[in-house]
Amino acid sequence: MISNRDEVTQMILSAKVSKGIKWKQVAEAVGLSKEWTTAACLGQMTFDKAQAETVGKLFDLSDEAVAWLQIVPSKGTGGIPTDPLLYRLYEIVSVYGGSIKELIHEEFGDGIMSAIDFSLDIQREPDPKGDRVNMVMSGKFLPYKRY
Amino acid sequence: MISNRDEVTQMILSAKVSKGIKWKQVAEAVGLSKEWTTAACLGQMTFDKAQAETVGKLFDLSDEAVAWLQIVPSKGTGGIPTDPLLYRLYEIVSVYGGSIKELIHEEFGDGIMSAIDFSLDIQREPDPKGDRVNMVMSGKFLPYKRY
Amino acid sequence: MISNRDEVTQMILSAKVSKGIKWKQVAEAVGLSKEWTTAACLGQMTFDKAQAETVGKLFDLSDEAVAWLQIVPSKGTGGIPTDPLLYRLYEIVSVYGGSIKELIHEEFGDGIMSAIDFSLDIQREPDPKGDRVNMVMSGKFLPYKRY
Amino acid sequence: MISNRDEVTQMILSAKVSKGIKWKQVAEAVGLSKEWTTAACLGQMTFDKAQAETVGKLFDLSDEAVAWLQIVPSKGTGGIPTDPLLYRLYEIVSVYGGSIKELIHEEFGDGIMSAIDFSLDIQREPDPKGDRVNMVMSGKFLPYKRY
Amino acid sequence: MISNRDEVTQMILSAKVSKGIKWKQVAEAVGLSKEWTTAACLGQMTFDKAQAETVGKLFDLSDEAVAWLQIVPSKGTGGIPTDPLLYRLYEIVSVYGGSIKELIHEEFGDGIMSAIDFSLDIQREPDPKGDRVNMVMSGKFLPYKRY
Amino acid sequence: MISNRDEVTQMILSAKVSKGIKWKQVAEAVGLSKEWTTAACLGQMTFDKAQAETVGKLFDLSDEAVAWLQIVPSKGTGGIPTDPLLYRLYEIVSVYGGSIKELIHEEFGDGIMSAIDFSLDIQREPDPKGDRVNMVMSGKFLPYKRY
Amino acid sequence: MISNRDEVTQMILSAKVSKGIKWKQVAEAVGLSKEWTTAACLGQMTFDKAQAETVGKLFDLSDEAVAWLQIVPSKGTGGIPTDPLLYRLYEIVSVYGGSIKELIHEEFGDGIMSAIDFSLDIQREPDPKGDRVNMVMSGKFLPYKRY
Amino acid sequence: MISNRDEVTQMILSAKVSKGIKWKQVAEAVGLSKEWTTAACLGQMTFDKAQAETVGKLFDLSDEAVAWLQIVPSKGTGGIPTDPLLYRLYEIVSVYGGSIKELIHEEFGDGIMSAIDFSLDIQREPDPKGDRVNMVMSGKFLPYKRY
Amino acid sequence: MISNRDEVTQMILSAKVSKGIKWKQVAEAVGLSKEWTTAACLGQMTFDKAQAETVGKLFDLSDEAVAWLQIVPSKGTGGIPTDPLLYRLYEIVSVYGGSIKELIHEEFGDGIMSAIDFSLDIQREPDPKGDRVNMVMSGKFLPYKRY
Amino acid sequence: MISNRDEVTQMILSAKVSKGIKWKQVAEAVGLSKEWTTAACLGQMTFDKAQAETVGKLFDLSDEAVAWLQIVPSKGTGGIPTDPLLYRLYEIVSVYGGSIKELIHEEFGDGIMSAIDFSLDIQREPDPKGDRVNMVMSGKFLPYKRY
Repeated sequence: MISNRDEVTQMILSAKVSKGIKWKQVAEAVGLSKEWTTAACLGQMTFDKAQAETVGKLFDLSDEAVAWLQIVPSKGTGGIPTDPLLYRLYEIVSVYGGSIKELIHEEFGDGIMSAIDFSLDIQREPDPKGDRVNMVMSGKFLPYKRY
Repeated sequence: MISNRDEVTQMILSAKVSKGIKWKQVAEAVGLSKEWTTAACLGQMTFDKAQAETVGKLFDLSDEAVAWLQIVPSKGTGGIPTDPLLYRLYEIVSVYGGSIKELIHEEFGDGIMSAIDFSLDIQREPDPKGDRVNMVMSGKFLPYKRY
Repeated sequence: MISNRDEVTQMILSAKVSKGIKWKQVAEAVGLSKEWTTAACLGQMTFDKAQAETVGKLFDLSDEAVAWLQIVPSKGTGGIPTDPLLYRLYEIVSVYGGSIKELIHEEFGDGIMSAIDFSLDIQREPDPKGDRVNMVMSGKFLPYKRY
Repeated sequence: MISNRDEVTQMILSAKVSKGIKWKQVAEAVGLSKEWTTAACLGQMTFDKAQAETVGKLFDLSDEAVAWLQIVPSKGTGGIPTDPLLYRLYEIVSVYGGSIKELIHEEFGDGIMSAIDFSLDIQREPDPKGDRVNMVMSGKFLPYKRY
Repeated sequence: MISNRDEVTQMILSAKVSKGIKWKQVAEAVGLSKEWTTAACLGQMTFDKAQAETVGKLFDLSDEAVAWLQIVPSKGTGGIPTDPLLYRLYEIVSVYGGSIKELIHEEFGDGIMSAIDFSLDIQREPDPKGDRVNMVMSGKFLPYKRY
Repeated sequence: MISNRDEVTQMILSAKVSKGIKWKQVAEAVGLSKEWTTAACLGQMTFDKAQAETVGKLFDLSDEAVAWLQIVPSKGTGGIPTDPLLYRLYEIVSVYGGSIKELIHEEFGDGIMSAIDFSLDIQREPDPKGDRVNMVMSGKFLPYKRY
Repeated sequence: MISNRDEVTQMILSAKVSKGIKWKQVAEAVGLSKEWTTAACLGQMTFDKAQAETVGKLFDLSDEAVAWLQIVPSKGTGGIPTDPLLYRLYEIVSVYGGSIKELIHEEFGDGIMSAIDFSLDIQREPDPKGDRVNMVMSGKFLPYKRY
Repeated sequence: MISNRDEVTQMILSAKVSKGIKWKQVAEAVGLSKEWTTAACLGQMTFDKAQAETVGKLFDLSDEAVAWLQIVPSKGTGGIPTDPLLYRLYEIVSVYGGSIKELIHEEFGDGIMSAIDFSLDIQREPDPKGDRVNMVMSGKFLPYKRY
Repeated sequence: MISNRDEVTQMILSAKVSKGIKWKQVAEAVGLSKEWTTAACLGQMTFDKAQAETVGKLFDLSDEAVAWLQIVPSKGTGGIPTDPLLYRLYEIVSVYGGSIKELIHEEFGDGIMSAIDFSLDIQREPDPKGDRVNMVMSGKFLPYKRY
Repeated sequence: MISNRDEVTQMILSAKVSKGIKWKQVAEAVGLSKEWTTAACLGQMTFDKAQAETVGKLFDLSDEAVAWLQIVPSKGTGGIPTDPLLYRLYEIVSVYGGSIKELIHEEFGDGIMSAIDFSLDIQREPDPKGDRVNMVMSGKFLPYKRY
């Protein structure tokens, strides 16, 4: 009996290590970006039927687990992360957040950058002084409604 | 008597509204990106002497305030933001953080993306379905030392 | 010297009590709904120039304060409210939140109800067993992007 | 041995996925609104005997589980939600809460909107610019007693 | 300029000490119970015009302060109290809360005891082993609506 | 192997539902008030040997469980409750706490109402406008020692 | 205008430093222990009229401040202390708390050590390996009432 | 497989109840004070080999459990206690902490009372008005190093 | 099925106690410092294949566990530690943090000491007044980028 | 009127910026290490009379401020730091804390590294790949007392 999506995420993580599968392979099999596919495998996005079955085959999941991959999950890990890599992302929000807010409002007026109509692309940028992580975030600007 | 950098930030914010100055104008005067310059005006980065004097003139700051702009500030606002625009940034970390961690490690191995040797670029991306906010983050990859 | 929007909100609240102004009168003068106008007076929305001047006249605000009303504010009070009326709103989210999530996903699939492209209408509903508060919330459904 | 209602909620959620049942079907079988019925299935309301048995048949629950559905549960999930859909509901309280309080007091005087003598109705509102979620909340106004 | 009710509460507390006024005297002047009157003076309830003027005279408050006494305040101190007397009240909820919940549901079914249609009476109960504090709380039972 | 009282509380709650026992029946069997007996069954008070055996028979508990009922438990659930009925109790402390403190000190001087030498009585008070919950709390006044 | 006891505590601390007064001198003047007297000066206990006047003379306090010394204060600093000396006291509770609970219950049965009918005595204990701090706490045992 | 000390503590507590052992008996068998021995059994101190074997025999522990008793545990329960007896200890720190700090500094200068080179002794003090709990804490004074 | 690194850490800790292995022996077998090796065994660093197999042999781990040792773990325990030894480390940051920040900035300008390009060395320093713990931390200075 | 040490710290920080004084100069004038002296200026240590007067002259402090420098301050900033430099120190405790605990216990047995009988030395370590920050911490080992 599976009663939440987290149990399926744990099955995927366990199978991934014992089978030595890479996220990029999963993304190719599913036919979407590695960013969206990884997020979906980690229980943050919803697969359609065909995608769920593809993922199920790669990780040897039961039918019940495949059914759960098509259920909208409870998302977000919340809190302030303790893992150093995750904390750096949080720190960027903490240090640069105010400036991002000021500059978006200066350019667009009152509103937000959507985190739903949103995409993310992570690339390695070769650099002689040490390669860099390049992250491109693209979110639709949503203006506050006046009524 | 000024005893911390926050007081200078408040002077800048107050003068900015009454004088109607834009962050882009400040950045041009200082000769650096709008992202770094805004962060510095908001008390998150340190100006050198010439930059501090330029900023001081734009905002009519006292010599004491200009001296404080050259002192390394206490950075970061911390906490979980309540402002909707800021919260969306935090939510991206909460929803996508685990995936970003997995993908960086898959590409680079154990380590982090630096938030210090780091730059940020925010652009408007025109889109017929509604313009988008485009944020490019570039941080040096730092591998964990084995010793 | 005004250095944040909260100071203007306090001026408005103070003038509202001594002058005996009602929120509905402000809304009529501004020409928008009472819900949006009150939110804007409380520092949660941004007035345009004409609206800000109207509000400024009603509450006898200085030019500096009127300028601040046109600056996008830092929004949200955050936390878990202690005021009983506000707590009941929070409790509805706590008790019904899971059900609202299930029913929106059942109807629309994966996505959210926007809190930005959003409007609110509060009405008194007469009832012989005791009048009721009727709140209508309308938010655009935003589907999660697959990419 | 079942020792709290959460265990029954997990049984329902598990059976719902494997059987592919919809909340609307449950509501029809029970004969009440989809909002109340879903809340009750998620452990936030109390079923009477007939309703509990109906739900028990739909989800193949044991007699012990059916007995627990008739016990008043411990309600509310509390905290600040991390799921984006739930967070937007919380954000509406955070951004609009003060205004709702002002407008209810302006209309009714000192008191609250009940979250107990309360009903909720969620509908899809077709809109050419994108369908909307429409939520109607109706709660009895309760005036503070003077004594 | 007064911009919130707390400032008025502080004026009352200050005047109470320098004038040596007792809460019972205030209650008698206002013509209501000592419990409600004290709560109102501490910024938890709303006075009507006549009551506010009576209180204003007793404590030598300005007209502006008297106007604020008629505004519905933001109520509740929240948090977990540190004062030993207040903590004991909280501890009673922490130790006996579950039992109170069980017994009210056993007697009344699903619902709550109102904290709005509520009154409180505190009396000294003489006792040879040491006098006791007697607190009577009376709140209307509100059943959960089924719809 | 039972290693804490909570496990026994869960056994009691489970047996109570499947056997359909009422707290009042337990109290009668034990020969004490329903308030104290319920609190003890929920792991907040300590039974003596005879009482524990009575309770053990009613709920079919093992000898080990009966032994645990005679061990002083770790008490208090702490935190701020999310269940609406429990929250109303907490809200009364939050809204009325300051007034209770003022009135007890006005009557008794510096000290507290004991939560140990304390009793609680909950009754239904019939009322044509809707029955009321009546809670009487009686706690010994303990003056602060001067030394 | 003084509106809370903390302001008086700050006056005392300020005068204590500029006048070079010792807590022991204050205790002697008041005629009570140094522990109780210091606690009272720090806003944790209530002076009677004669004691308050003595303290007022020592620290050159105004009549209004002397009146406040006779008002029961809001006690307790709460939280987890950051000062190393205070933290060690907290750590003793954290490390030894469970053992103290076990041993008091083994000796006395169910109940608590009063923190109200309580006294504290701090002495220097000479020791060739380094002098020791000796703290004696004495609190009345209060048994839980059965009813 | 035992992977932390807490599991051993739970074995000890379980055996203590079923065998009816007293902490004083354990202390006598071990040959140390009841305070230190109880703390060690509760996972706050480290037994040597002989002591661990003695404890193991008393509570019928496995060899693996006896080995864990000799491993330095992770100590401290942290947080703010909810159990009334434990809370009173915390409250003493909250109410008297500032005074203890002042008096130790007045007597010894800058430094702390050690919580490591520390002992505790708990005794029943007979008193006609009700027996008292007497706790003697003795900790070495450690002066802050100047360098 | 292993689904996270913590499970492997618990296997290592359990085997370490039953086999009586020392961290220094593990470090020698792995061929790296005792500080890095212990951190890696506790789930804070990533082993390469050869190192993981060495560790696996020492602690009799399964192939699946050995595979997990080569996966980058989720690091950091977060929170404020309650264990006295760990708390002292936290206290040093709390008491000396501001001074460390000032002195690093005075020497190096704006930037940080890396916690990634970082090493740690712990030694016993014999001292007639009591041996000392000597910890040497070495982290690369990373200057903030201006762009 | 100065009523706490923080006010003096702010005076020092303000004077330091306007006079352009370096911490190393202060340390030389005082005749102690730069680490201890900076900590003392930031309100974490206690100066003796001669040191306080030296510091007072350097920063043009009043006699009252100089008196406060000789009073033992309330130490520690507590919380989890948001400043990136400070956070890295906290992160080292979070990531390496468990390992430090294991290694100190392996070497010394049960006890702690003192944070009171403690010294700190910060040096720049030249390195062709980028200079490093070198921090040496030396704290007396304190064994837990058995009694």
